[in-house]
Amino acid sequence: MAKDLELVLLLDCYGELLTPRQRELCELYYNEDLSLSEIAETQGITRQAVLDSLRHSEKLLRRTEAQLGMAARIRRLRRCLEEILKEAQDMETIAQLARDGLELL
Amino acid sequence: MAKDLELVLLLDCYGELLTPRQRELCELYYNEDLSLSEIAETQGITRQAVLDSLRHSEKLLRRTEAQLGMAARIRRLRRCLEEILKEAQDMETIAQLARDGLELL
Repeated sequence: MAKDLELVLLLDCYGELLTPRQRELCELYYNEDLSLSEIAETQGITRQAVLDSLRHSEKLLRRTEAQLGMAARIRRLRRCLEEILKEAQDMETIAQLARDGLELL
Repeated sequence: MAKDLELVLLLDCYGELLTPRQRELCELYYNEDLSLSEIAETQGITRQAVLDSLRHSEKLLRRTEAQLGMAARIRRLRRCLEEILKEAQDMETIAQLARDGLELL
């Protein structure tokens, strides 16, 4: 299973729909960048159990994105705010507002 | 049941989590601004059935917002982009970018 950076954003958007346990394993794998074996060892479960849980979570996160499309919306909006920031680099008020906006994403 | 404009935003964010039928009734009520009786009449169901469906949908939409908070995020970001637009009214490139951003919300 190759790590997919898209999943980091999906986890940020929809992680609260997972159980605390599923979310914990996803965070260790996608955010803390631990390997399957490292997670298995620290959590006292098999590597296969970690893999099954991650696959299940990934399926739920992707299905939710297919329904709601929030991650795609955030990605487009982020590009838009980054453009504003670039255009506004000598205009401190606008630049600060764009930074504020980026922090909200 | 007083109409709640918050629900319009929640419907935009999470409407795809409802069944097509639930979504249709919500759209008639919140977006088309029909009354319960008008919806009941055009849909050939009782006013009580419309009310039950709307209440059920509202509960799901509010629970999802409590979990994901996307509507609150969008509301804050909208204010931020509106501020950029105000600051940038004489700077056409930035203003256009802010307008593009607002259209994404």
